[in-house]
Parts: sequence; C-alpha cells; structure tokens
Amino acid sequence: MRKTTPTRLSDLAATMNTRSTEEQHESGDDHDRPLLVLGAPGIDASGNPLTSPSNRRAFLARASTLSLALPGIGAALAACAPDGQSSRRDSAASAAQQTGGRSGEDSLGLHNSNSRLDTAVLRDPGHGASSATTANSDAAAAALRRYDPALPPLSANRTLRLNWRAMEVPLRIQADTVVAAWTFEGDIPGPIVHCRVGDTVEFTLTNEVAVPHSMDFHAAQIDPKVAFRSVTKGQSVTFTFRPKWAGAFMYHCGTAPVLMHIGSGMYGAIIVSPREPLPPAKEFVLVQSEFYLAESVNGVRPFDYNKMLSTLPDYMAFNGRPNQYIDNPIRVKVGDRVRFWVVNCGPTHPSAFHVVGEQFDTMYLGAPPGTPIRGVQTWDVPPGGGMCFELVCDVPGEFPFVNHAFGHAQKGAIGFLVVEP
Amino acid sequence: MRKTTPTRLSDLAATMNTRSTEEQHESGDDHDRPLLVLGAPGIDASGNPLTSPSNRRAFLARASTLSLALPGIGAALAACAPDGQSSRRDSAASAAQQTGGRSGEDSLGLHNSNSRLDTAVLRDPGHGASSATTANSDAAAAALRRYDPALPPLSANRTLRLNWRAMEVPLRIQADTVVAAWTFEGDIPGPIVHCRVGDTVEFTLTNEVAVPHSMDFHAAQIDPKVAFRSVTKGQSVTFTFRPKWAGAFMYHCGTAPVLMHIGSGMYGAIIVSPREPLPPAKEFVLVQSEFYLAESVNGVRPFDYNKMLSTLPDYMAFNGRPNQYIDNPIRVKVGDRVRFWVVNCGPTHPSAFHVVGEQFDTMYLGAPPGTPIRGVQTWDVPPGGGMCFELVCDVPGEFPFVNHAFGHAQKGAIGFLVVEP
Amino acid sequence: MRKTTPTRLSDLAATMNTRSTEEQHESGDDHDRPLLVLGAPGIDASGNPLTSPSNRRAFLARASTLSLALPGIGAALAACAPDGQSSRRDSAASAAQQTGGRSGEDSLGLHNSNSRLDTAVLRDPGHGASSATTANSDAAAAALRRYDPALPPLSANRTLRLNWRAMEVPLRIQADTVVAAWTFEGDIPGPIVHCRVGDTVEFTLTNEVAVPHSMDFHAAQIDPKVAFRSVTKGQSVTFTFRPKWAGAFMYHCGTAPVLMHIGSGMYGAIIVSPREPLPPAKEFVLVQSEFYLAESVNGVRPFDYNKMLSTLPDYMAFNGRPNQYIDNPIRVKVGDRVRFWVVNCGPTHPSAFHVVGEQFDTMYLGAPPGTPIRGVQTWDVPPGGGMCFELVCDVPGEFPFVNHAFGHAQKGAIGFLVVEP
Repeated sequence: MRKTTPTRLSDLAATMNTRSTEEQHESGDDHDRPLLVLGAPGIDASGNPLTSPSNRRAFLARASTLSLALPGIGAALAACAPDGQSSRRDSAASAAQQTGGRSGEDSLGLHNSNSRLDTAVLRDPGHGASSATTANSDAAAAALRRYDPALPPLSANRTLRLNWRAMEVPLRIQADTVVAAWTFEGDIPGPIVHCRVGDTVEFTLTNEVAVPHSMDFHAAQIDPKVAFRSVTKGQSVTFTFRPKWAGAFMYHCGTAPVLMHIGSGMYGAIIVSPREPLPPAKEFVLVQSEFYLAESVNGVRPFDYNKMLSTLPDYMAFNGRPNQYIDNPIRVKVGDRVRFWVVNCGPTHPSAFHVVGEQFDTMYLGAPPGTPIRGVQTWDVPPGGGMCFELVCDVPGEFPFVNHAFGHAQKGAIGFLVVEP
Repeated sequence: MRKTTPTRLSDLAATMNTRSTEEQHESGDDHDRPLLVLGAPGIDASGNPLTSPSNRRAFLARASTLSLALPGIGAALAACAPDGQSSRRDSAASAAQQTGGRSGEDSLGLHNSNSRLDTAVLRDPGHGASSATTANSDAAAAALRRYDPALPPLSANRTLRLNWRAMEVPLRIQADTVVAAWTFEGDIPGPIVHCRVGDTVEFTLTNEVAVPHSMDFHAAQIDPKVAFRSVTKGQSVTFTFRPKWAGAFMYHCGTAPVLMHIGSGMYGAIIVSPREPLPPAKEFVLVQSEFYLAESVNGVRPFDYNKMLSTLPDYMAFNGRPNQYIDNPIRVKVGDRVRFWVVNCGPTHPSAFHVVGEQFDTMYLGAPPGTPIRGVQTWDVPPGGGMCFELVCDVPGEFPFVNHAFGHAQKGAIGFLVVEP
Repeated sequence: MRKTTPTRLSDLAATMNTRSTEEQHESGDDHDRPLLVLGAPGIDASGNPLTSPSNRRAFLARASTLSLALPGIGAALAACAPDGQSSRRDSAASAAQQTGGRSGEDSLGLHNSNSRLDTAVLRDPGHGASSATTANSDAAAAALRRYDPALPPLSANRTLRLNWRAMEVPLRIQADTVVAAWTFEGDIPGPIVHCRVGDTVEFTLTNEVAVPHSMDFHAAQIDPKVAFRSVTKGQSVTFTFRPKWAGAFMYHCGTAPVLMHIGSGMYGAIIVSPREPLPPAKEFVLVQSEFYLAESVNGVRPFDYNKMLSTLPDYMAFNGRPNQYIDNPIRVKVGDRVRFWVVNCGPTHPSAFHVVGEQFDTMYLGAPPGTPIRGVQTWDVPPGGGMCFELVCDVPGEFPFVNHAFGHAQKGAIGFLVVEP
C-alpha cells in the first residue's frame, strides 16, 4: 500500500458546515471561534517574530548546522557576515511596496558572495532530504499573522518603485507549523503589487541569502536572460517594465531548479488593472499554493524537493496559510460586487475556484474586460496563471471559497467570504 | 519502486477497438457482448437490492461491527432504531425527483439523534483505514444496474418539490465490486434534477444515517450556513432556491470533511436549461467521479479517506459505474444533435472530455447559450464544475466518449455513443 | 515516506537563469553550451541509428528474450519473419508525410499474423513490470536527434496521402536514456501533419510489429469502429477524412489499453489551418507528453504500464526529448509573430503553457480564428487537446517556454525561444 500524508485533525475538520445550526447557536460562536476548524488548537499569537538582528544571526548560524542535507550551503551560510539590515519589518509588506520599500543598496557588498558555492548548491539541491535551510529555536517566536487579501489601492503615481529583498525566514503558516521559507520580503506570498496597464514598474531585487535568486514577473514583456537573471548574495538586479495587459499575474523566483524556488515560497501576485476602470467592487487577491515539507527539525519544517517532485502536497493554502480565512474571514456587505483576482502559484496543481452558495456572474477569459463569460460555478486557474472572478453579494451569509479539487483543498485551500447585512 | 494500484483485467481491457474488424465479424458480437471489456466476468443482475426493512436493519447492525475503524460511529449506529421507512425504492430515483419523491417528514423524530456522537465522528474520521461503514452479507444481493444517462424531461410545473434522503447502501458499481456508499436517494450519483432558469426548487433532505449530512446545490444562490447546514440522523433541512443561470451544476454533501462526503458518493447533477430552449437535441448527463476504496470486508469495499488524500483513485466512472456504457451504450440516430451535460464531481481530478471520431461543433463557456465556441476536440471540466458539449451525429458508428486523461480514464471513464443508421 | 523518482542532475538543473550574468560572460557560452543544463553530459550524436535490416532483426530477436514480462509477446516476436522493409529512414518523417511516404503495401502478407496471440497480449499487458519489448545492444547506436518543431508547409495538393508504419524502435530521448518505443514512423512524436479545413487526408497504417495497433485522428469525423480499428502484424488499415475544423489536433493509437499505447509513444499532431489563412507567422508545433519508464535492460528502458497508472512520470517533454530546446532553441527574429500549436498527448497531465518574459496577445478558444482572447500568461491544454497560442516578438532575448506545472515540468518540459535582433 502506498503510504499517504499523515492525516491531521486540522485537515480533516477544516471545511463547511460541521455542526447543525442548533449546536452553533448553543455555543454562541460565530466567527470568533471558527465553526469549521474542529479540534484545531488555539492560535498562539505571541506576536514576536524574528525582529532583532541578533535573532537573525542566530537563525543563520543554526541553519548551517543542518546543512549536510544540502552540500555547499553550510559553507555559504557560515561565511555570512552579521547583518544589521536583516531585521524583519513589522509593517505590512504591501505598504512597503507601494512606497518603494527600503533602499536596496544598504546591504550591497556586505556579504561574502561566492558564486562557486551557489553553483554547487544549484548542481546538487536534491541529494539530501531537505531543500531548505532550517533549524531555529526562534521558530517559537514566529507569530501566525493573517495575510491581508485586500487589493492595495492604486498609487496616484504612474511609476512604481519596488526595492525588494530575497530573504530566508522562519514563517508560521498555521498554529503548529513553522516553515523554513525562501521569500520575497519575508512573507509567503510576497507583497501584492497593484498597477495599471501602461504604468511603469521599476524593480530591484537584492539577494540577502546564500543561494542565488531572481525575479520573474509574468506581467512583464522583457528579456528574461537579462532582467530575470539570478543574483548571488549581496548582489542586486534592477529592471523596468510596463504591463501591456490587464490581469492577475504571477511573479516568482526563476532560479534553477524553478520547482524548488517556487515550491519554497518565492512567489506572489501582481494585479494589473485596465486603463478604464472595471465596475466598482471590493477587490481581493487570493494566491493559491502548495506546501511540501520535510519533518520538523528544532521546530522548523524545511521544504522537501523530492516531495515537490512527487506532487502530493502536505498543505494547500490561499495566501500562504492553510485555512486562515476560516478563522478570519473576508468581510463585505450585502449589495457589494466582489472581485477575486486569483493567482495560482502552484507549483503544480490547478485551482478549481468556486464560492459555495454563489455563482460568478462574470469571469474574464482574456485580459479584463475582454471576453467576459457569465454564470460560472467553478473555473480552473492553471498553475502559473491567474483569472478574475466577479460576483454580486445579493444575499447575506457565510460563503466558503474553495479549490473544489478537494483531495488537495482539504489540506487548507478553504476560506470564508462573509456577506454582512 | 512505488507500489501502484493492483492492475485489474477490466481496467486494462476497457477501451477502444481491441480487435480487428475481421475478429469482430467472426464472433458476431456487437454491443450485446461488449467488444472492449476483455476478460470481464459476466454481470450478475440478480436484481434484488436491499429492499426490505429487515435487510436494512441487518445492514446497519452488521456495519457497527466494523466500526472500530471509525471511533464513535459504532455507538451511533447501535443507537439506531429499527427503521420502517428505510427500504430502498426500486423505482428510478430520477422519477422520484420529478414528482417530489416520498414525504420527507415520515421519519422525522424516529431516530435517537445524538449530535455529540456525530461530532466525535467528524473529529476523527481519518484515524482508521476506512472512512465508511461497511460489511454486509447482503452485498451479494446488490445488483448491477445501469444508470440512465438521459436528461429527464422538464416538468410542466414551474415548482419542483424534492424530498430526498441521505442513505447508506451497499452499491454494486461493477460486476465484482460492491461499495459501502453514502448516497442521496440510494444511488451514486444521486438523481438527476432538471429545471429551467427561474423555476423554483423546494428541497428537503432527511438524514437517515448516523453521520451528519447536508446538501449543497451549485445552482443555488443562498446562504450556505443556513441552507447547506448539516443535519443529524432523523433531522431534516429544507430550503428553496431559483436558479439564475443555465448550466450543468454539481450538487453534493458539504459536511466536513467535504472530501470524505463527496468521495464516498454524495453527489450528483442539476441541469438548468435556459429560459429560451436550446436547439432540439438528445440530451444526456454524464457525472464523472473517482472511487478510492479499501479492501473488501465481507464482500463490501469501504471508501478510504487516506486514499482520497493520496489522489490516486482505484476507479473513475461516468455515472457511478466504471465502463457501464461500454456494455450498454448510449444510443442515438444519425442526424441527431447530441447534447452532453458533463458534471465533474471529482473529488479531485479534471475531466478532459472527448468523443472519439467526433468533434464538438458547440461548447458553451458561459451559461448556455452564452459564449459558444466551435470545433472543440477536448475540453477540461474542472472538479466541482460542469460544461455543456454538443455535436451533430452525421456519421453512423460507435464513438467512445472518454476522459482523455488516460492514466485515470483507463480505470473506467470510458463509454460508447452508438449512432444508429 | 513515499519514495519518489530518483532525482537526476539533468532534471534539477534544466531551467532558467542558473548563473549570474558575470558568470555567463566569463565562460563566454551563449547557446552553444546551454546555460541551463548544468552538469548534463555532452550529447553523443554518433548519428548511426538502427538503419540496417540486420540490426532490425537483431532488435526483435533480442526483445523476445525479455518477453517474460509480457506473456505472449515473446512468441509473437519469435514468429516474426526477417523484414527487409523495416529499416529506419534517415530522412525526416515530416518530409515523408508530405510526399506520401513509402508504399504501405510492401510488407503486406509478409508476417505471420496471429490475432490469437495479439489478443493474449491485450488481455495481460500489466502483469509484468514492463509494458514494452526491450533489450538491445544496438541502443548505443540510437543517436539523439532534435525533433524539428517547425510546422511543415502546406502542400499545393489538396489531397494528402499518408502511408505510415507502426514500428518498434529504440529511441534516444536524452543523452543517457534510450527507450523501447512504440511509434508511428519510428519517432516520438510521430510526423507532424499539416493540412487545411476541407482538404482530403488518405491515410494508411501498416503494422510492422507483433502487438496490434491502430490510428485515431482527432481531426477526423468518422466511425472509429471501422476507421480506427486495430490491425495485427502485417495488416493495414486505410481510411479517408476531411477535417471540418481548424486547430491543433492529437492523433494516437487507440488500441486497448489506450493508456499503454499512448504512454509508449504512439501519438503526434495534425495541424489543420483554416481556409482563410491566419496572419503570417513563424509557426511551431509542440507536443507535450509524459514518459513512464522501467529500469534499463541492456541499455534500453521499457515503458512501465503500472507507472502510467500511478500518474507520476519520470520525464515530461516537448516533442519527445526532455529539454531538447534548451540545448537547441527555437529561433526567430525581432518583429516576428510566433504561433505555437500546442498539442498535449498526455497521457494524463494538463499542460499549463507559458512563455517566460512574454504574454500571448492572442489565443483561440474555438477553432482558429474563432473566439480569440487577449493578454494570456498561461493556459491549460488538456490531455487529448490542443490550443493555438500567438505572440509578437517585440523584444530580443531568450524566452523559456514551459509547462508551468513545475512538479512535472522540472522533468523536461522546458525549452527556449530565442528572439534574435
């Protein structure tokens, strides 16, 4: 018999309508205590993520002790100088990206970049059981934060300047799970970018970690060999693009092997609104992705490249935390038009996007507002793709949004849209 | 080496054109003895399914002896009172639904409902090897019946009253396989519902089994928290909706964990015709789904929740029986327009729907008749979705319809459309 | 832990942007030595494929020594007469198909066809570990050839006469891998066919091998029972069709079990251009498919039917060779419109087609030029389906085209479109 993923209570329970209305009324819990996560432990929100430089250094130092799993990376990490710039900001990354974030030049030249080591890592990433550095006693300090799904407003400025960092952080994706994440700006997914067709995006990536990284925006028409090239630790790459088409586009690290870099957390969404605004709506961004994890080491679970190749994920999530919008739903009002920009970052499985109790009155097959179709219950968003779904909330209630491929969705790709009267 | 599903002759053989025309003519068998199921044993159609109340009680009693696999469910079943209403009707469920079926109120209050037990079941469904109650010496009596794929005619009445039961039955899905099914109205899939945009559907579900169940119609715009809530044994839930959009919509039990409830058989199709009729056609409904089964116990195979999570099914079928339309094809005449309403109930895999030797002259991407496209060989219906496919049968012959994802389809998602001269 | 496919260096490394631009400039390698296949051994292009009749006989004789894996096939092969017509042509199959190829009648009646044996093979293909005949000391002679992705020009003649053979050959799909291929005309995929809506295609298949084979064109509207019937060794089948709809259509062997015949290499693409030409473009055909292989025997890897059923492939490729267009990219010029006709032959997984650094300005959802959509980053081509993607190469550079489902794509479904200034 093929052995499957250990079944977790939180997987089993996270879904719709587990109790009769009688029970719900008895216990008096509406959203504050989630209806749908039976048996899930209370969330520890100690709120003290890895914010001090000393914690950061400790993380990297301890990570190196596990590096046997990934030959070469230990040496790279050991060579890492203490890094005063590496503290993780508390401010939302989405705020940072709208204002341009910190200056990427700060840390240039601080690191002992060694492309030979990086290359060694690239040649041999799959020989061990783990594809990510790991082990951190600070894991306990990584708080579970809700990822804000709201589409950030457009800037008045028609030029967006983004200075992002490729960062390694321990990230708590659910109450009992901290992952050794490769990230853009310290989160999975990275910051949501919002611009218009024809806007200018000036982007700089600075790599703060020992493994080479890069950035590939699906919204850009540009030579990938130059713009999406990998940079080693301490290096930066800068490029500028003007989105030609509206839509929900993926961005991700494109460094080889791409599967490992996407699979370890380096992705996000750039939403390009059309020149002529779409009908007014409450707009949200949902990034679906999969998590393939090795067993925990000192409280942190590294990503597992061989599992990624096996295509059977441990978790699937919207915006990086399994079931987060069950506990903390997305809220709108009766009469609102809701627009979901759904980006499927995979790395592998499609997203059969569906809202329970609703249908989409409009979906755009081409760049919005092109080729609208009507009356859709479920549509597949391919990995590496994005689609725009709209519905009008005529009816108050609690509407689960799901990936209707439940063999995967049961592992966390379920949330709630609450329509308040 | 990864061990795979045991290979069955019927899996291997069930497909197109296994012999030359010479051989076919020699043996003189056309459709009566299926060309394509080499080595499949003769079908036992003893035609005596679990119809008497005593059989029903016996089934539940025996099921409880196996309940160690699913803590809590044994006690729930043991508490079940003898149930005079639980006999399985011989009449086709599709007839029942058009006329409103039996009165759902009959069994209200008869059962010793115990929501605490139900909750225990929900908390712990995956700890054992099995996710369904099982074991039944009556399994031998469960006959293999063809599921009628014809779209039921529209009622003259613009209000459809449906009184359905959530039932546990042993269901023979192929000659050598009886499953411990969770069903709507005793079959997988449940009855086909057919109505028009703007019709009123008054629906009542009465739960006859110890595990909580519910109903989620994808054609309804309604608050799921109320309408799609779970009911325990003996309870009923009633709701009313008016479909807004035409299309092929899934319905299913939405009780947590949804994967288990869909994966164990609680799904079906509601077809909503547009207000203005589509062009005249022979209309058929095909519900694709997957079966994940544990080893047989006393002749019945329980559903296996861990296998569902592994996403590698044992069988895949149109309308609940692997390969049933190879043996007993769908028959039309030359010149007919054929309309397939394909609903993919998953729980997990897409359906790459295709008819061998034909192309679809029309497919509707939006609610029919919206956004027709032309000249399609194959289109993916996502799990939880439905699409409408049309072709004109200009040419007589035998046309296999398949899920062209053959790694799964080879396990039973193949049938025949016979176009008679 | 579930054991996964052994990780190969070439899998891990084959992707985008593995080194910084500094490194690239240091080594001075542009396309001649692929940037992206780190650690891949040099390609042996000894160019001496199995071309002599004696080699062919030797192949079949040796194959029979392994036939225990597949009861019945050994006897069938042993009965095979020496075959003077079986030499593999050096000329591109795509040239052959445009001119009608060799006369299919040559070998009729030469073989000791025995349908009883064929049937035995069909009844029992999955009992062994291997689904294909194998073992060949000539494997070393099978050269790695690039599959030309260019769409062949339309013939002036409105009737296309194709005489093809079902052939078993050892085929080198990458430097270190030779597979025991079942093919049309000796290659995976088979020849690209190009015609117009309304053209006449007169097709003959002659089966040169001991296992029955057949041909199913998705572009044909025809009775499959007759036209797509299986023929045994030495037999031929002929049929004629006129494509009704434009598009990128799959063709494949439809003999039972279809999964085995598609999975072992018997597929390809027929591109039907519309009557009114589409806008001028550089047109390419990409056939995505999966490889499920058993361990090597005497240097040849048989296809593994049980692995096909497990749906976890060893390799995924465009046009039959993993990563071939990384080493030898597709080249166009700035300003060119590029049209990709993408056919997904599966057998199982969708293709999330994407070009890095570009968007498709046009994709046709219906038969081209019907239902164009604009501004697409990624679109799923279902297994058994085909789609037409267009982009304008405004920007010079190196643009990877990929299946963005990277859990599979990392195994070889990556290539390069180079846009030269």
